[in-house]
Amino acid sequence: MSAAAIDRGRFAADLEQLGAIGWTDGRGLDRTAFSPAHREARAWFLARAQEAGLQTSVDSAGNHSATLPASAAAATGGRTPRTLLLGSHLDSVPGGGRLDGALGVVAALEVLRAVADAGLELPVALEAIDFTDEEGTAVGTLGSWALAGALSVETLASPPCGREALLAHLAGAGLTEPGLHRARRDPATLVGFLELHIEQGPVLERAGAEIGIVTGIRGTASFEVIFDGAARHAGTTPMDARRDAGLGAAAFTLALRERIAEAFGGCVATVGDVRLEPGAANVVPGRARLAVECRSLDDAELDALASLVDELAAAQARRWNLVAHVMATGRWAPAPTDTRARDAIARAAGAAGADALELPSGAGHDAQVMAAIAPTGMVFVPSRGGISHHPDEHTDVEQCARGCEVLLGAALNLVAAAA
Amino acid sequence: MSAAAIDRGRFAADLEQLGAIGWTDGRGLDRTAFSPAHREARAWFLARAQEAGLQTSVDSAGNHSATLPASAAAATGGRTPRTLLLGSHLDSVPGGGRLDGALGVVAALEVLRAVADAGLELPVALEAIDFTDEEGTAVGTLGSWALAGALSVETLASPPCGREALLAHLAGAGLTEPGLHRARRDPATLVGFLELHIEQGPVLERAGAEIGIVTGIRGTASFEVIFDGAARHAGTTPMDARRDAGLGAAAFTLALRERIAEAFGGCVATVGDVRLEPGAANVVPGRARLAVECRSLDDAELDALASLVDELAAAQARRWNLVAHVMATGRWAPAPTDTRARDAIARAAGAAGADALELPSGAGHDAQVMAAIAPTGMVFVPSRGGISHHPDEHTDVEQCARGCEVLLGAALNLVAAAA
Repeated sequence: MSAAAIDRGRFAADLEQLGAIGWTDGRGLDRTAFSPAHREARAWFLARAQEAGLQTSVDSAGNHSATLPASAAAATGGRTPRTLLLGSHLDSVPGGGRLDGALGVVAALEVLRAVADAGLELPVALEAIDFTDEEGTAVGTLGSWALAGALSVETLASPPCGREALLAHLAGAGLTEPGLHRARRDPATLVGFLELHIEQGPVLERAGAEIGIVTGIRGTASFEVIFDGAARHAGTTPMDARRDAGLGAAAFTLALRERIAEAFGGCVATVGDVRLEPGAANVVPGRARLAVECRSLDDAELDALASLVDELAAAQARRWNLVAHVMATGRWAPAPTDTRARDAIARAAGAAGADALELPSGAGHDAQVMAAIAPTGMVFVPSRGGISHHPDEHTDVEQCARGCEVLLGAALNLVAAAA
Repeated sequence: MSAAAIDRGRFAADLEQLGAIGWTDGRGLDRTAFSPAHREARAWFLARAQEAGLQTSVDSAGNHSATLPASAAAATGGRTPRTLLLGSHLDSVPGGGRLDGALGVVAALEVLRAVADAGLELPVALEAIDFTDEEGTAVGTLGSWALAGALSVETLASPPCGREALLAHLAGAGLTEPGLHRARRDPATLVGFLELHIEQGPVLERAGAEIGIVTGIRGTASFEVIFDGAARHAGTTPMDARRDAGLGAAAFTLALRERIAEAFGGCVATVGDVRLEPGAANVVPGRARLAVECRSLDDAELDALASLVDELAAAQARRWNLVAHVMATGRWAPAPTDTRARDAIARAAGAAGADALELPSGAGHDAQVMAAIAPTGMVFVPSRGGISHHPDEHTDVEQCARGCEVLLGAALNLVAAAA
């Protein structure tokens, strides 16, 4: 037995092989959940695990796993050893990049191989997991929701992709709704969950840090804000006789930006879409519909952001003689990561001599779901230019390996702490 | 012979009959150019003119006319008497109102009947004209452009409706391209052109005026303004790391509004459409495309407005770290009305005891085209709530009759001045 260490060559070769599955130059990665390329990637993952002598399994939610069992000693006396989960997802958005999700699965596999290669005897099982449909082809974080027992009947009755598409996806993958519910794992069997992921933002790169220790996944509050005015002829309606819904939309957008900068430093807020009606050059807009999204690590702050949206919509409606309506369209609670998991990551980064930075995750992840049932930690590596969900998504392979190294150390730290 | 006066009952009955052609409750008036309803309305117009003993004709651009010839005395000695044109158009936008265009044709017909009924002997012919395709089903102001000899080969080669649709429309109406060009009338044969129209804006109603004396038809300068930033994940991209094209669009929209109010009092400017790309709630907009339109009575002011659009786009691009592009997408020169025509209308309004107000027309009209070749005047009547191009478009029939009365008086004043 020696100290475990990742095999950088093997790890890099795996990333390269996997990154070719579903890739088209100019178009990027098309590996949406349940697609042929996605199936191919998952089969590749299990085959690579089997080559390494790991156990493989697929649960009734389609989550694909490779497992390194606990030591024989840990399994004696009728005790079933607990499991430390490591992983992410192999599905992509349409036209996405090679690393989102894939890095976390390959790194988890490499951690298991490194531990096995070193002959370490651990008191818990290590399981590298590829969750089903994280990106939302059908539902989004479908596999982790199923595993966490958090998949509601309502969600399956009217999923984002539509009920019929969901049933078709499930049938095509040999899955069933009862099976999704049966995939729930008892939290008592889990030591925790660790996910390595690209940052998908510019914070680490701008700070010159190699490793991000995720403090939590920001919660999201989404709204549709509508301003109603009066659609009128743009040539015949004097400026002071207008009730221009587009002006309400513009003023709201700027005011939101200003207030976030002034009073909500750790949050982000975005007007991602604006639709003007009728939307013709020669008609004063009679209606504006805005898609507004706010994110915060703190649930009470999300409430304050919701109040801010209401307040600004009302104020701009008064200012421009419009009527404003604000509808909440979605709410995700913030998911703080586990302090022990963060500590395990920080110590691993320190041992590796890597510059680490604490930061929140603005994007949703399987870790967000897992945090509800198990001590969860997340490791970020920098994203060049903060780009993701795009073919140009990139992290140097050395930085990916650095993340894998920290994931390995963090896993061993967490196992030691749990023993 | 007695003083000419309009027959309010006949006029109101005509408006009602015509308003039923192409009307559907809930949907409004569908009498787009070349449609069966449009053909029916034009046939109705000629039939009503024939019932009144007027001559009727259709020129090679499909313009439909009723004519009251000049007196026999005026036609002696080999002189061909000149013609005073009065009219507008019988086509509508899809789902439009009953009065836009139709009022001007019915009123012109009534003026001819009133003059004929009174037995007035005029030195010029009066011609009530229904121009082809004013609203732009195929080209827009097609009939008046043809009559004015202003129809360019380029316009017919790539018309707004597309070349194939234009050819189909022409063929369906028995028209040809050479015929359109042949419809040109010699300006020397015209005394002038008078058009009665609903205001399509709120100015007269707000001022409590009965009659508008149009000072000119505003010119238009249209632009597409594009802001390019960077589409990034709305959760992972800090506010200060964004290049949000939507903020550029919002700030430009507000700044344009402010500068128009400060420095361009007689003008209007509108951001009628904004498109954000990719336009998703969870993505910072990477591109914004704005449809911007400015109108002014003064050509030099249109130039200044074009410079303003350039200046504001560049300033907001700098402010939000974006790249701005401004493309001119259209330009119509302003068309001042004729001072003698305005004077003829003002005196007619005075004689009728009608409160009259001078104002520009923000909308385009056949009068805009005719102003280039003949002394042209326009009379407005109030639009309830400023609404037009909509089923709710409305002007009380008494106010329409008042407009017709002023049109009659203005026509006689203009004839007298031209004699």
